[in-house]
Amino acid sequence: MREHNLGLVLRRVADAPAPVSRADIALVTGLTRATVSSLVDALLEGGLLVELEPRSGPQGGRPAAGLVLSDRGPAGLGLEVNVDYVAACVRDLRGAVRHRAVRRGDLRGRRPAQALRALLREAHAALDAAGNQGLVVAGATVAVPGVVDAADGVLRTAPNLRWRDVDVRDLLRRDARLAALDLTVGNEANLAAVGELDARPEGPDGFVLVSGEIGVGAGIVVGGRPFRGGRGWSGEIGHVPVEPDGARCSCGARGCLETVAGQEALLRSAGLDVPASSSLGGEGSVRLLVDAAQADDPRALAALTAAGRAIGLAASAAVNLLDVQAVILGGIYAPLAPWLTGPVGDELTERVVTSAWAPVDVLVSRAGTDAAVLGGARTVLDGVLADPASWLRRAGVA
Amino acid sequence: MREHNLGLVLRRVADAPAPVSRADIALVTGLTRATVSSLVDALLEGGLLVELEPRSGPQGGRPAAGLVLSDRGPAGLGLEVNVDYVAACVRDLRGAVRHRAVRRGDLRGRRPAQALRALLREAHAALDAAGNQGLVVAGATVAVPGVVDAADGVLRTAPNLRWRDVDVRDLLRRDARLAALDLTVGNEANLAAVGELDARPEGPDGFVLVSGEIGVGAGIVVGGRPFRGGRGWSGEIGHVPVEPDGARCSCGARGCLETVAGQEALLRSAGLDVPASSSLGGEGSVRLLVDAAQADDPRALAALTAAGRAIGLAASAAVNLLDVQAVILGGIYAPLAPWLTGPVGDELTERVVTSAWAPVDVLVSRAGTDAAVLGGARTVLDGVLADPASWLRRAGVA
Repeated sequence: MREHNLGLVLRRVADAPAPVSRADIALVTGLTRATVSSLVDALLEGGLLVELEPRSGPQGGRPAAGLVLSDRGPAGLGLEVNVDYVAACVRDLRGAVRHRAVRRGDLRGRRPAQALRALLREAHAALDAAGNQGLVVAGATVAVPGVVDAADGVLRTAPNLRWRDVDVRDLLRRDARLAALDLTVGNEANLAAVGELDARPEGPDGFVLVSGEIGVGAGIVVGGRPFRGGRGWSGEIGHVPVEPDGARCSCGARGCLETVAGQEALLRSAGLDVPASSSLGGEGSVRLLVDAAQADDPRALAALTAAGRAIGLAASAAVNLLDVQAVILGGIYAPLAPWLTGPVGDELTERVVTSAWAPVDVLVSRAGTDAAVLGGARTVLDGVLADPASWLRRAGVA
Repeated sequence: MREHNLGLVLRRVADAPAPVSRADIALVTGLTRATVSSLVDALLEGGLLVELEPRSGPQGGRPAAGLVLSDRGPAGLGLEVNVDYVAACVRDLRGAVRHRAVRRGDLRGRRPAQALRALLREAHAALDAAGNQGLVVAGATVAVPGVVDAADGVLRTAPNLRWRDVDVRDLLRRDARLAALDLTVGNEANLAAVGELDARPEGPDGFVLVSGEIGVGAGIVVGGRPFRGGRGWSGEIGHVPVEPDGARCSCGARGCLETVAGQEALLRSAGLDVPASSSLGGEGSVRLLVDAAQADDPRALAALTAAGRAIGLAASAAVNLLDVQAVILGGIYAPLAPWLTGPVGDELTERVVTSAWAPVDVLVSRAGTDAAVLGGARTVLDGVLADPASWLRRAGVA
């Protein structure tokens, strides 16, 4: 019962738009003042709440201390290993980003243990940054560009990394500092959807976030909650067929969205096929594509229109099947949105049955390329907010 | 509290595989024997439960009366208006089908009020049949082949009927016998998924039921529950593009699944384009197609293979996006399954990313063409089981 009530009190503070008093908490939760005070004391001692200096009330009455979430207590660590970068971010309990880093580097053909060493370096830097700011990392979520088995956390397949059945968690836990953390592994597109949802408190509450990278994935939100499917394998929009007899995809099938609108296919058809070994890398090539489109280069414009149509075609399938209000362009599609939004929107208008009276919005990702690590860190923090008693036990607070 | 406990007791009887005693209910619910007896008495008086003759217990001890759901109490009425038939069914609280009827007739071009008169005749026959069997219809669910607005129950569009913004509920309530009932309107594919789920207690707990009629729709189940999307508009698989530059669809777009695998397109490419006005009608034509395929008619076989590939293509998009374990062939695809299952399965194996280690099952609908009315009646009964107190008030039981 006390565990449940600790969660109630913490949730009240987290949900309030401004600092709240013990009296307000008692009123809203229906708990006695004495109970609330005892719970608040535990949450203060455990570093989950902090108390602001008393200020006079609006009526000029007795000044009440205001409680807010702590920015010096538990933090969430978001990690990501992707095809051509690794990333990390640290967020405090208020959601503020306290550290972020993205390091580019083509990881294709690298063995998992070797590739994860690059991630470990970023993880250590993030843990150091957290420690230097007085934060205690409560856990980490690792985003991976592939299908994760919900039962055992194993990455079943990441076609663009050419990895199969990789136990990312187990590999990372060979490092002593990460072994001390609660570690979970999740699909990067699903975690990006959590990050995007968090960055859009005003809605929409249903969307498909289409993230373009070397691979193309989608994170789905329906009714304000991430939709992960029966086994956590939802959102594989990169393998929705858009040209049934088209080019061969990394997954083995033909004409998947990835074969037209994946980063490499897109750069190639724009005539900007910079080798991965080049110092420019994928990000630099995308910047070249933006430059070419801004200069009205016909080949770049044609490639972007074709990619936009293909994204729109696959997104139409998604909206017709899932019934969401918006399609959000993320990953490399965010900087390219000025040229993609038109063709994507045209396809949606033509092909989504309900668009005649409920037009589908085409938006640009707010969380950006960091969406997956932001969502990963958010997931850790949501765990602390949902079960503060576990955190308090760890912190040695009765 | 009593309302909540009435639901607990009824649910315990509904979920038990065999008749249960008051003592068993007290044990499982944690309520006192006296409370259970009072609740059971109310449920017996309200016709929701019946008591079987006492039999000796397994230990030869004192005989205990067994409680089961009533088969003479409330019933659910499922109604359906589709493009070329209307249907009705009555199910008792145990789920047994006590009346069913399907009447063929092309309704395209008919005005809603005119078409609904055909449905009213079936509804009256069903109400008569229920009354003659001592059942009291607790409510009705009307399945329609189009997109229903969850907010007001209005049918926004049914492309194949060429209806827009039709308030089916309001039209039906002009009939005095239907006006006396709780009436809800739902999409036929969504309701068919409820019917199919009900017919498969052993699973799978995630599937896409693809129903072929004049139009093509899908009912989606994820994690054992119907997935309706943000606004109840999910499952529009008939408008997933399978030939981006293909034939014009009734929805206005090009190359939707319906243009290749809808009933008319399929019959036409098989050379069996029987006019709708013919006495054979759609059902007769489908029987002709089965005959032709059984006789190895090359045109029929080619048409079925092409349709199977198109269904498999759209179903691959659905499985990649939704993460379900099975694709179920319903409507006219059920009798045609011997020729469709192969090509559908081939596309799924090639195109679903997770199929390498988690093959997608291709199954044939168990609920059949009645799935939507079976699901509609089930929905009414689930409402009674979830809130027996409302039923008891209506029945005049305190």
